[in-house]
Formats: sequence, C-alpha cells, structure tokens
Amino acid sequence: MSLLVIGSVAFDAIDTPFGSTGKIVGGAASYISLATSLLHDQVGLVAVVGEDFDFNFVETLNQRGVNTDGLQVKKGEKSFFWHGKYHLDMNSRDTITTELNVLGDFDPIIPDSQSAPHFVMLGNLSPQVQLKTIERISQKPKLVVMDTMNFWMDIALDELKEVIAKVDVLTINDEEARQLSGEYSLRKAARIIQAMGPQTLIIKKGEHGALLFGTDDQVFFCPALPLEEVFDPTGAGDTFAGGFVGYLASKGATDFESMKKAVVYGSALASFCVEKFGTERLESVTHDELNARLSQFEKMMTV
Amino acid sequence: MSLLVIGSVAFDAIDTPFGSTGKIVGGAASYISLATSLLHDQVGLVAVVGEDFDFNFVETLNQRGVNTDGLQVKKGEKSFFWHGKYHLDMNSRDTITTELNVLGDFDPIIPDSQSAPHFVMLGNLSPQVQLKTIERISQKPKLVVMDTMNFWMDIALDELKEVIAKVDVLTINDEEARQLSGEYSLRKAARIIQAMGPQTLIIKKGEHGALLFGTDDQVFFCPALPLEEVFDPTGAGDTFAGGFVGYLASKGATDFESMKKAVVYGSALASFCVEKFGTERLESVTHDELNARLSQFEKMMTV
Repeated sequence: MSLLVIGSVAFDAIDTPFGSTGKIVGGAASYISLATSLLHDQVGLVAVVGEDFDFNFVETLNQRGVNTDGLQVKKGEKSFFWHGKYHLDMNSRDTITTELNVLGDFDPIIPDSQSAPHFVMLGNLSPQVQLKTIERISQKPKLVVMDTMNFWMDIALDELKEVIAKVDVLTINDEEARQLSGEYSLRKAARIIQAMGPQTLIIKKGEHGALLFGTDDQVFFCPALPLEEVFDPTGAGDTFAGGFVGYLASKGATDFESMKKAVVYGSALASFCVEKFGTERLESVTHDELNARLSQFEKMMTV
Repeated sequence: MSLLVIGSVAFDAIDTPFGSTGKIVGGAASYISLATSLLHDQVGLVAVVGEDFDFNFVETLNQRGVNTDGLQVKKGEKSFFWHGKYHLDMNSRDTITTELNVLGDFDPIIPDSQSAPHFVMLGNLSPQVQLKTIERISQKPKLVVMDTMNFWMDIALDELKEVIAKVDVLTINDEEARQLSGEYSLRKAARIIQAMGPQTLIIKKGEHGALLFGTDDQVFFCPALPLEEVFDPTGAGDTFAGGFVGYLASKGATDFESMKKAVVYGSALASFCVEKFGTERLESVTHDELNARLSQFEKMMTV
C-alpha cells in the first residue's frame, strides 16, 4: 500500500571520536526513505531542498523506487544544515550549527497523485508543517506514524500536542517520553501519552532497544543488537521509524502482531545505519544482509 | 543439584523518594537465597552476622528450605550495615554509611556436608573471601557464578581478576563491564572479559534488561519488565543472580539454552524485588505470581 514520507532532506556535518565528515546528505526523511525503500516500492517523498543540494542522492532515491515528485527545489536558496559533535560515549551530542534555510518557510505540497496515501510517516519536523501535511491529505490514511524530538517540546508544545492528537503511532526516545508525560516510569508515561491521542507508542532507547506499547497494556520489547562499534548514530531513530512504517506499508497491516515484527525490522535497519557515517551504510545494505541480521535478532530474542 | 550461596547477610537502611526504612535485613546473600529458594530446595548459605541480627529472617530462610548451617553468628559483634540514599531517578544512589563490622574479617567456613556443591554462587563480597570459598570447595563444581561490583575494581583489581579467572559465569552491570574491560562497546567488553576466564558473561542493565554472552559470540537479550513504579532497587541484581543460578541448579543444567531461560527467571524475580522495600516483596512471591510474570516476559519477548 502507498506510503507518504515527509521530513527534512538536508546537509549534515558530523564530528565523532572516529573522525569528521564534511557536508554530507542527512535529514530525517533521507534516512526514512532509504530504509523504507529496502522494504517497499510505493513510497513518495515530500520535502524541500535548496539548489545547493546533492542531487545524486535524489537519483539514488529514484533508483530505489522512491517517488520524489513531492521534493521541492528552491532556486537561489540553501538546504537545511546541521552540524553536530558526538561525545566520547556516542550517546549524547552537541549541536554546533543549525541553519534552517529552506526549512524556515517549508510549505509541504503533496502531489495530487499521492494525496490519498494508505500510510503516512511524519518525520521529525516542526509540528506546524506536520499538521499542514495531515490537513492536506485528502482521505483518512490507515495509519499515521509521527516522529518528533525534545526541541519541539521545548518551543512548541501546544502545536506538538495538536499533531500528536491526530496520529496513530508516536515514536520518541525515553527522555522525550518522560518530558512529554512528566512521568519517570515509562509504563506510566506510555499511558499518559496514549491518552493524548496515539493508540500506539514506541519508546526508542538507542543501545537499549525499543519498547512498543499498544492498547490494553500490550507491551513488546525489541533489543538493540550489541555492536562492536557505533560509528555514527545520526539517523538511527529515523531509520528505525522508516523500517517500522515501511514494513507495515509493505504488508498493508496495522495490527499489534505486525507492529512487533515492524519494530524488529526497524531495529535491524537502525543497526546498519550506525556502522558508517551518514547514509553510507544504509545505501549499501542488501536484502541478504538484512535477512542475516533479522536472524541475529531472532536468535538474540528467542528463549 | 546442590547449590552453595556465599555473600553478605546484613542490615540495610534505605532512603528513597518514597520514604525511608529503619534497619532492615539486606545483603547480597539474603536476596540470593530468597530468590533461589523459590526455584530450588538444595540450597546452602555461607555467611556471617553479628548477634544483633534479625534471626526471624534466618528462620524464614530455614522454612523455605535454605540450609543455614554455614551461617556464622559472631557473639558480641555487629552485623554489616549499609545505609544508602537513592536519587530521584532511582537509577543512582549515594552511600551514606558503611560499617563493615563482622564482614571485616569474615572467614568463610563451609560445613563438611556442603563442601562439594554442584553449583556455587559467589555473591558480592571481597575478592579475598570469594577466593577462599573457591579454595575450600573440595570438588570442582559444575558451575561457579560470581557477582561483584565496581568498588572491588577500584580497590582490589588484581585479587578480583584472580577470582574472575576461576569462575564460569560473571554477572556485572554495564558500567562495571566498561570499567573492567576498558572498552565502551559492550560487545568488545564481553570478549575481553571472557578472555579473563569466564566462558559466560551477564551484563545487567537494570531497567534496560540483561545481556547474556556465551561462547562463539552467542548473545541473548532479556528485557526488564517496564514497571509502574520502582519502589526500591536494592537487591535487584542479587535477586537476578539468585534466580539465574537457582534455575540452573534446579535443572542441573549449564548449557547456553538453559542459561537463556535462567536469565528470564532472574529478570522475573528481580522485577518483584523492586516493588517493595528490601526483601519484603520477595518473601511474599508465590509460584503462581512467578508463573504469571514469566508469561508476561514471554509475551513481551515473542515476535
């Protein structure tokens, strides 16, 4: 079934203890689209870039079957740019530069041919743009999945809650779940956040895995693969979300049992993402590699 | 098969955001024995207390089938005492008081009838005492499991490594695994620690579950149950270890598949431990409750 992805397509510069990149392709929707394209072939992307963007990446997406008719290119403008530096433990990072550029007044235009998607993935973006996207979809989708971050909780909580009320699945990390709910216990936090709207909540815990909370107190836990080395965590959460929604869209499924599988797919894809800088590893993952990693997850989880 | 438990049996005083206890029974071996006694009936305890100890607790252990012939009572002396205060997040704590008392010169005497146990659980204690215990066992056990903590890494690393070299399974938390190995990646840390001696390493991650590393890069992950409230984390790691070794001793098993199940038993018992202060909840857990919780774990882990 058709899947519409919206989010940032941008430039990143990343400093880690292992080295630094120059300007490379980043952005939530870049990672999401790449992840979904491994699992599904009916993916459309809505985003905005400046004319400085690396259009080889757009071609890569097209070759992988992602429809980029909804990607706006702003003449004479620059793409969103983020420069971040990871601490030694790779679990925390500082933002060195954020240049909004084209994202500052992003008006998401959904191509007519994609205006009634079955599945929608709202990648991390301002709640205002996420809301506009929902309003511009002509038919109620089977499932709307939303990712966001603490930044929007700090500066636009009311608008954020307005979007959250309209989605089916919210994916945030543990600190964000605590911030949004005001509860330290993730079980209590889940209940409070579910009462804000989404039937399903996914709490991403990075190296500690992911928790899936459904209705009727259903809980599923998917571990993260213990890796030799986390080379660059950028985009892992986006990749997770992309794998999650890509799997569901490919099956046309929204039931809890399918969501459990989808969380494992998201976790498996995220485990590749962190192995190299930026989108590099994700672009090279083969179906055989993915299947081998899914087997590793199964082994690790089976009593 | 017979299981010998050695460790501290002591008094604790615990301050949490939910309240404070006076002096209550604590100590690694108290939690371990209680946990094992739910799963197994051939458990012997080697420990030392002062004559100030609460001997109702010893009676409780006896009623649960724990043989306390190896529990020394030092006339005119006082039991080990620890007073700790948990921070708001319940994940970190400060030690307010430590009084070694009888633990200062603990000489572990193993009753003759228990000197050839099939399974041995070395609860957290000074490496010197752990080593003496191993030396005083007359026949090589099927499995020796050892728990320890960062404190001994800080002040007695050489002795600690001497014990680690002699055990089959080591249980430590993630920070301790990083400290002991000098590696941040838990996968690399596991390999380094396994090269120190133990074939099997369990890394306890508290609310983030537990990782079991076996030979040939075998990995198993058991989540922690997301709880409404963590009331008092004291003893959760000891309870986990007790459930782990108690399950294996009850089955007479040391293979990796059985260890996976044992980790789930340990996690399930630990999830009870934190629900009330001290050993209170653990003393009241029934087999029906344990089975219900094991089902919850199964649901949470099954794709």
